[in-house]
Amino acid sequence: MRILVLGGDGYLGWPTALHLSQRGHDVGVVDSFARRHYDDEMGTSSLVPIRQLQRRVATWKEVSGHTIEPFIGDLTDPVFVLETLRSFGPEAIVHFAEQRSAPYSMIDRSHAVYTQVNNVVGTLNLLYTIADLDPSIHLVKLGTMGEYGAPNIDIEEGFIEITHKGRTDVLPFPKQPNSFYHLSKVHDSHNIMFACRIWGLRSTDLNQGIVYGQQTPETSLHADLATRFDYDGVFGTVLNRFAVQAAVGYPLTVYGKGGQTRAMLDIRDTLACIELACLNPPAQGEYRVFNQFTESFSVRDLAEWVKRVAPVEVKVESIPNPRSEQEEHYYQAVTTKLPALGLKPHLLSDETVVSLVEAGLRYRDRVNVEAIRPTVNWRATKSEVSVPGGAVGD
Amino acid sequence: MRILVLGGDGYLGWPTALHLSQRGHDVGVVDSFARRHYDDEMGTSSLVPIRQLQRRVATWKEVSGHTIEPFIGDLTDPVFVLETLRSFGPEAIVHFAEQRSAPYSMIDRSHAVYTQVNNVVGTLNLLYTIADLDPSIHLVKLGTMGEYGAPNIDIEEGFIEITHKGRTDVLPFPKQPNSFYHLSKVHDSHNIMFACRIWGLRSTDLNQGIVYGQQTPETSLHADLATRFDYDGVFGTVLNRFAVQAAVGYPLTVYGKGGQTRAMLDIRDTLACIELACLNPPAQGEYRVFNQFTESFSVRDLAEWVKRVAPVEVKVESIPNPRSEQEEHYYQAVTTKLPALGLKPHLLSDETVVSLVEAGLRYRDRVNVEAIRPTVNWRATKSEVSVPGGAVGD
Repeated sequence: MRILVLGGDGYLGWPTALHLSQRGHDVGVVDSFARRHYDDEMGTSSLVPIRQLQRRVATWKEVSGHTIEPFIGDLTDPVFVLETLRSFGPEAIVHFAEQRSAPYSMIDRSHAVYTQVNNVVGTLNLLYTIADLDPSIHLVKLGTMGEYGAPNIDIEEGFIEITHKGRTDVLPFPKQPNSFYHLSKVHDSHNIMFACRIWGLRSTDLNQGIVYGQQTPETSLHADLATRFDYDGVFGTVLNRFAVQAAVGYPLTVYGKGGQTRAMLDIRDTLACIELACLNPPAQGEYRVFNQFTESFSVRDLAEWVKRVAPVEVKVESIPNPRSEQEEHYYQAVTTKLPALGLKPHLLSDETVVSLVEAGLRYRDRVNVEAIRPTVNWRATKSEVSVPGGAVGD
Repeated sequence: MRILVLGGDGYLGWPTALHLSQRGHDVGVVDSFARRHYDDEMGTSSLVPIRQLQRRVATWKEVSGHTIEPFIGDLTDPVFVLETLRSFGPEAIVHFAEQRSAPYSMIDRSHAVYTQVNNVVGTLNLLYTIADLDPSIHLVKLGTMGEYGAPNIDIEEGFIEITHKGRTDVLPFPKQPNSFYHLSKVHDSHNIMFACRIWGLRSTDLNQGIVYGQQTPETSLHADLATRFDYDGVFGTVLNRFAVQAAVGYPLTVYGKGGQTRAMLDIRDTLACIELACLNPPAQGEYRVFNQFTESFSVRDLAEWVKRVAPVEVKVESIPNPRSEQEEHYYQAVTTKLPALGLKPHLLSDETVVSLVEAGLRYRDRVNVEAIRPTVNWRATKSEVSVPGGAVGD
């Protein structure tokens, strides 16, 4: 199958491209290197050293004999999108190419606007181009479980049957996202659903949980093939971050009470889910949603797990929650569609937790301890033009 | 009350500003003249001649003795937003300032992207500026009944109680909008709800039906005070458009079977609703939704009504529906909150229909018959860069 991976230089995009290539698919990757730019902006970098895309692709060719074709450009440029799709001719497009950090989107007004414009416009450009060029292209779009928020009812897979005043309909599941980033994914979901309905496109919206892990069978083949590993307060996700905190002797920073429940999955399961979605496309005109996770954990439980099995001494610290969210809430989410397609999950194990801490230990000299603590506060607003006492232009 | 009307040069914004001013409020208007620009772009113009904003405001001062302060600029410019809010110091902001035509948003990719970026970014800038400057400012935001689409259950006011697998929650009503314009309003609604939750802002989201009518007590006071009257296939809404078609002897163009049901209201009721919302603000931190309409009609019924009472001979023609929508569907929407605040509706009457046709007759020399038929087809995609056989840059 010809599969184009958008955001193919990123944390998940790159291992996904390798995995699909290893499995015999013809793979292209698209990237604007926005993620590397955020590193420069924030003064952070991947715990594990990563190579530039050109080198990654060359090493993959040497190691595996497979070719991955790179396309460098930005999805907000419609000419680039058209030329890339026309040149590569994909049967499926896996779309990771969005700003994906909730804290980054909450830094200030311009980061919120950037996140929503970048994500929504990139996806709109894709939808139009697919519709014009070849509506049979299957758009596999990365959404997030965070689109749902934490309702007091069970979370279904995208849609819910509602009976109300004696009548019944199956309607989009109500969304209560918790950041301008999560909101951008909700906007995308609505736009994609509409495009499938009016133009007969087909799309799978993968509402993914939080991914942990850093090694996959393919990235382990050569140091040049490593994918990034983020531990900072802005881009580091919870379990990866805790593992690095443990490795450098920094107390694990649990936000608030830590009762927040997160749907999660192993990075190897992400790759398997993506291939399952590609190999089992929806009917033409269908918009479907898969909840892509394997287990749920409270943040507190994850911290305790790291503390229990890490080969070093670990402290757990509760710090004021920078996010605006419930810290104790009902959480029960359904995930049946990917298991029905054959997903065999890698459940979280002591071994995985230890391997993450060991990665932290191996690269502890590269850790910037200053970057660990959360620096973005949901409750603070920063309309960066409103300097107290006098705005720009005053 | 100090009220700032955004989009105060438009079809509804201008009469709203006059009405609030006449009722004794201190009124400012903000406009970028985007709507006048769309006229130039589409080669259309208001049926009724309208004056420039500066002249409108000057005449209003002469006629009423009241001052309306104009601010010329664009909400996508955050510095302009900050300076305007700081200068005027509103207690309430009435936000009409969005691209508001569904067909315009469906012209092609660039109009879809423009509509979503313009509307979403303008509202994000407002939210950040209000949060920074004065969170007590009440944002009265114009949404649309079209956000809901046509579900097979009764449409509630913004939220719905759902019982599912033995548990119950009150959640945002699921949205199924039918154009990239309607989608932009859904995006706004989600963003505003979030801002109220995390920053304690307060907002009323008015999910308005289709407005008909052109005269209000204030616009009738002087020809300079007239508001625009659109009859073209892109900006003309259904009843106004039918009235002008009747006046010029053009068959009333019913899209498809005409069984589409639309929630509607008289322009005078729009003004009353806006003032009621301003005078009865929500609590700090509250996001509330009012369904702002008074009656529902099928498109076919409206055409028949015009045919029955117009003082001229009228033909009704069914043309292929350019929109992608059900033409016969269940439609029952709740509206209780505005009546509870005291709204006394002007229900549609023979007199109102006749007055609209008479406006058409009075200005029939100004009608561009070529502009009446719908030119935008929902099913056609136009990614304007994808010239058949060779894209830009190929």
